[in-house]
Amino acid sequence: MATRIGILTSGGDCPGLNAAIRGVARAAYQTLDAEIIGIRAGYRGLIDGDYQLMQQSQFSGILTMGGTILGTSRTPFRNMRVVEEDNVDKVHAMKMNYRAMKLDCLVTLGGNGTHKTANLLSREGLNVIGLPKTIDNDIFGTDFTFGFHTAVDIATDVIDRIHTTAASHNRVMVIEIMGNKAGWLTLYAGIAGGADVILLPEIPYDIEKVARVIEERAKLNKNFTIIAVAEGAMSLEEAAMRKKDREAMWKEDEFYHVSQRIAARLQQHTAAEIRTVIPGHMQRGGSPCAYDRVLSTQFGVHAAHLIKEGRFSLSVALKGGAIGENKLEDIAGVPKPVDPEDQLVKSARDMNVSFGD
Amino acid sequence: MATRIGILTSGGDCPGLNAAIRGVARAAYQTLDAEIIGIRAGYRGLIDGDYQLMQQSQFSGILTMGGTILGTSRTPFRNMRVVEEDNVDKVHAMKMNYRAMKLDCLVTLGGNGTHKTANLLSREGLNVIGLPKTIDNDIFGTDFTFGFHTAVDIATDVIDRIHTTAASHNRVMVIEIMGNKAGWLTLYAGIAGGADVILLPEIPYDIEKVARVIEERAKLNKNFTIIAVAEGAMSLEEAAMRKKDREAMWKEDEFYHVSQRIAARLQQHTAAEIRTVIPGHMQRGGSPCAYDRVLSTQFGVHAAHLIKEGRFSLSVALKGGAIGENKLEDIAGVPKPVDPEDQLVKSARDMNVSFGD
Amino acid sequence: MATRIGILTSGGDCPGLNAAIRGVARAAYQTLDAEIIGIRAGYRGLIDGDYQLMQQSQFSGILTMGGTILGTSRTPFRNMRVVEEDNVDKVHAMKMNYRAMKLDCLVTLGGNGTHKTANLLSREGLNVIGLPKTIDNDIFGTDFTFGFHTAVDIATDVIDRIHTTAASHNRVMVIEIMGNKAGWLTLYAGIAGGADVILLPEIPYDIEKVARVIEERAKLNKNFTIIAVAEGAMSLEEAAMRKKDREAMWKEDEFYHVSQRIAARLQQHTAAEIRTVIPGHMQRGGSPCAYDRVLSTQFGVHAAHLIKEGRFSLSVALKGGAIGENKLEDIAGVPKPVDPEDQLVKSARDMNVSFGD
Amino acid sequence: MATRIGILTSGGDCPGLNAAIRGVARAAYQTLDAEIIGIRAGYRGLIDGDYQLMQQSQFSGILTMGGTILGTSRTPFRNMRVVEEDNVDKVHAMKMNYRAMKLDCLVTLGGNGTHKTANLLSREGLNVIGLPKTIDNDIFGTDFTFGFHTAVDIATDVIDRIHTTAASHNRVMVIEIMGNKAGWLTLYAGIAGGADVILLPEIPYDIEKVARVIEERAKLNKNFTIIAVAEGAMSLEEAAMRKKDREAMWKEDEFYHVSQRIAARLQQHTAAEIRTVIPGHMQRGGSPCAYDRVLSTQFGVHAAHLIKEGRFSLSVALKGGAIGENKLEDIAGVPKPVDPEDQLVKSARDMNVSFGD
Repeated sequence: MATRIGILTSGGDCPGLNAAIRGVARAAYQTLDAEIIGIRAGYRGLIDGDYQLMQQSQFSGILTMGGTILGTSRTPFRNMRVVEEDNVDKVHAMKMNYRAMKLDCLVTLGGNGTHKTANLLSREGLNVIGLPKTIDNDIFGTDFTFGFHTAVDIATDVIDRIHTTAASHNRVMVIEIMGNKAGWLTLYAGIAGGADVILLPEIPYDIEKVARVIEERAKLNKNFTIIAVAEGAMSLEEAAMRKKDREAMWKEDEFYHVSQRIAARLQQHTAAEIRTVIPGHMQRGGSPCAYDRVLSTQFGVHAAHLIKEGRFSLSVALKGGAIGENKLEDIAGVPKPVDPEDQLVKSARDMNVSFGD
Repeated sequence: MATRIGILTSGGDCPGLNAAIRGVARAAYQTLDAEIIGIRAGYRGLIDGDYQLMQQSQFSGILTMGGTILGTSRTPFRNMRVVEEDNVDKVHAMKMNYRAMKLDCLVTLGGNGTHKTANLLSREGLNVIGLPKTIDNDIFGTDFTFGFHTAVDIATDVIDRIHTTAASHNRVMVIEIMGNKAGWLTLYAGIAGGADVILLPEIPYDIEKVARVIEERAKLNKNFTIIAVAEGAMSLEEAAMRKKDREAMWKEDEFYHVSQRIAARLQQHTAAEIRTVIPGHMQRGGSPCAYDRVLSTQFGVHAAHLIKEGRFSLSVALKGGAIGENKLEDIAGVPKPVDPEDQLVKSARDMNVSFGD
Repeated sequence: MATRIGILTSGGDCPGLNAAIRGVARAAYQTLDAEIIGIRAGYRGLIDGDYQLMQQSQFSGILTMGGTILGTSRTPFRNMRVVEEDNVDKVHAMKMNYRAMKLDCLVTLGGNGTHKTANLLSREGLNVIGLPKTIDNDIFGTDFTFGFHTAVDIATDVIDRIHTTAASHNRVMVIEIMGNKAGWLTLYAGIAGGADVILLPEIPYDIEKVARVIEERAKLNKNFTIIAVAEGAMSLEEAAMRKKDREAMWKEDEFYHVSQRIAARLQQHTAAEIRTVIPGHMQRGGSPCAYDRVLSTQFGVHAAHLIKEGRFSLSVALKGGAIGENKLEDIAGVPKPVDPEDQLVKSARDMNVSFGD
Repeated sequence: MATRIGILTSGGDCPGLNAAIRGVARAAYQTLDAEIIGIRAGYRGLIDGDYQLMQQSQFSGILTMGGTILGTSRTPFRNMRVVEEDNVDKVHAMKMNYRAMKLDCLVTLGGNGTHKTANLLSREGLNVIGLPKTIDNDIFGTDFTFGFHTAVDIATDVIDRIHTTAASHNRVMVIEIMGNKAGWLTLYAGIAGGADVILLPEIPYDIEKVARVIEERAKLNKNFTIIAVAEGAMSLEEAAMRKKDREAMWKEDEFYHVSQRIAARLQQHTAAEIRTVIPGHMQRGGSPCAYDRVLSTQFGVHAAHLIKEGRFSLSVALKGGAIGENKLEDIAGVPKPVDPEDQLVKSARDMNVSFGD
């Protein structure tokens, strides 16, 4: 009898989702007698019973495509820590649909929220395998998530383009890079783009120290400064506030970005012309880079291996450069922030890059 | 005796400036017994006497470089329409330095402001040739300015990347594209990127009509909408205000962008999730595309021709696909807005693209 | 009653075919009560009756895609100048299928061969409109064909990458660029990429003069040379041969490229290390650049206009920057080689670029 | 007293050389009282005494540049295994110049040949640190060399572009990818580009099995096939020959590429239209990708660390994702071919990719 594999993508989309889906499918068709059921729009489709039996041809030509052919949605739970009645109903519906589809395994592609739900379903007795995707690279237990390096390429390209205009105009450019909780994307793109200042959620900044970098560069006749700032970067004062208060303060204006906040405050300390750049969602769109295509393909193929071997409750991972896996219960929801003592942070400091601290 | 050519770049930087500089220089060295004086940071360098005799080797390897090796600055005049004392002094200084450099011709690369000053200097008796550059394509008398097509490529790439994430998430994406006075960049990138709505300074929009596009697409199961909006786009109400009042209203918050304004207002008419993307100055940075390299090279070479022929008070232009020139007095400061009846606007309308009107 | 439009793509594929197809379709659906019939693999599908009624959704998401969703094939006729029996049968079949499909118009996207057949069918009484596509830009009567500027971008990117490695290694790099009969692609990419030598089919070269450029550059301490050569470039000796003899000579080895021929002969005149680069078909693949998306969209929309107005036997064109049309009979099969006196050739010469003559 | 650091780049150029040079320099200036001596054109400059004291400003703006600001040349030794008189003289000259420059350390950036010489100089008593660069990724002891991922990106982009034209025309495309001894580049790009067949030096192919892939795909109505072939790929027959005889056979025609050989032989087994693409040196040119910029920067900074700590006779490496080092004597000249049992090869096989074996 055929092995029936359900597959869904959940959370923010990122480059490589289709490549990973293709990897699972091609390896499953090739090495198993597989049938693949595509579940629409993440866990929402699992809850609502929105799915279809896929044709093998539907996995052709998607390797290079951005986005996800299955659609995605954010986590189905309002608050995962509380056993709310609503949650119980949703979990029940997911289990019912898993049975209705006669699945032998559910493969979920997503980030920390997706993995938490995957782990929950695993504990409820379903066969589940997670694939770690996110442009933020903030999933514990894997060297890299897929999607990350593509986002680094895009953000680096933005900094490259800003560099020439900054230099021609003697300007301070504040480039806002995605990453609310983890600064990996800003750290990598900042180094790759040759940023002078890198501001991360994990290393609170002192605005006066940032202003001082501008001054010191001016003294060396470097009349422009590139500041790469993560969405979740915060000043020492903000870091000292309770999360709730800080976010309330920020949310007063829904469309007001961190780069604009920093630019406004920086302007109080310098006469230099300041401009902000907010590439936003373009960092998660478009065709995956070669690195991410290879990584997501390998992740997908490895998921098919695990299914063949009957090994579940796992999340595929890159560990020290080799493809392996973690137990879902060990990594689900465990964050991976940038360690201020990370080798890469130190390398940047040795290159005279300022973290504003 | 050598022909001495001064060259400066003025106004916002854009891709192709270095290619054009190289074109002037290589053709001048090749076809004239030329000496080239590089003037720093636009007219400011002409006023302050900040210049240097260039070596031929300084024009090597710059074809592909973004920005400008000469630096640039905004117009030296606070208000060009008034004969202020300050302006008179500046013009005097420019003429003195032109004589001090023993120039046979001054080549100025820039946009409308640059051309106004070029024309003023020409009327004061200097030999001046203008080269029309700007990512906005808003200079009268030339099919295209150089820098424009590179900016279109960049803005189109942004829309491409946004497309995949918009489709995966069922979102409305508002992408803010450069262009305060002219909507060419938004019009071209909007069509090239397959935007559903294009909002231009020249065609005031009705926010309710924009909201209706979102609804109508939803009815066709197209649950995402791409809106390309020019920086200078305005609603019917805003268009009815006096410019001064409108700008005062906008300037209340220096870092508040048009895309954010539109998103906020649109949110009042739709339940769809809306996100803004503000690529900003990245649209004027980086290496010029092939089209702009060829165009700016041709413009530069043609400037050298005109110098050889002793023809001045001209601006080089692309006219019906051929390189030619305009009289400075005919085009200086004459804007080139998008005609709402332009063939391209009509083509877009025929494709069911909405201009929100 | 609905207007029934057949559409086919013929000849070598090129970027922008899908964008043009989409343009025709969206404008036809929007401005006419249209039904669109997709004909498979060019005229072959018209001969064999291989076609399908398209759904409107099939034209969604194809704007950015390379290749052609309809497939393509080379000309169906072995020899168009002779009224062979085989040809008569094929023309008859095409007319029969045109009637069987109940077409009101046939839109053909292609190059010179495609237009010749389009003209033939038009003379046979069918309603035909041609859209000029080719990366070679060698169709008479239009400023540019779509596909051309994308190919220029790709070839320029190749030259850019070669530049850095040539300079680091002191090498002569011979880059073979597509174009058997017309040198436009090599001319534009050569100028955009800063090539030192440009060899075109239209300007026969003297290998010794090419070698001399290498020597002269070496004397100026420029120890590398970039040579952009069109596939159809030929030496003075080859140009003097009868076409038949020349091609026989070349065809002795099917996989032996012009760049390799030139490198071998150049090596007899210089001690410099020579390398060849043959990007080949990558020049006609991938997503169209913004310029080509806009142009092909406009061409497509204009075809729908012409159909609406009942104007046939035409080929859409860009004329002096405006969208218009030519009579098929005026342009079918009329080549557009590079004029050795073209403004762009002269500009290149003024920049000290050698054409080997 | 200042620490004097000599730096040279040797062997084939590759993206990231300038980024690594900048990394060494910026970290050395920042963390040591350093003076940096740039040695021209690899070991040749060390032998000839061709060097200069660098200014700090010379390391600005080079992060994104392809090639190498120091120039490069191939190995200075004709045959490293033999203690020829000529070699002894060269080594002597290198030692003399090392002393003349009063170097505290020599940093060499290069591949296997470069490391062999570095090791030799180290054994002769010089303080030497190697940085492993090559687009081939064939240096033992490091997860990745810098330059590799950029080359993968470029080769993948070539395959992407070929894909659309192959599909539109029903063709077999043979894409020749760099790599004479090691197939890593072809393996990664082949997987990232979705190649159907991947031919590597490490896995000899049977041309009939390759032809069979084409046939089988045709049966599934997949009328095109993408073959990624490494420069050093060989058939079973060729693999059975002595290296000398094989290379003699190949070298009969200097400009005859492996892709052309394979195409010719494949044509004997299939009626499908076959085309070759030879991107060649464009794979080692241009700006490094973000990954390589970060990696080469880290490598450079780590070299400065080692110098500060007085640790020499080492080569910097990426080991399990962390920056570390190997002893020169352990890795100099040790190749790193693709293991036919490598996880990535197996993943590809599970995806139904053929290696022609």
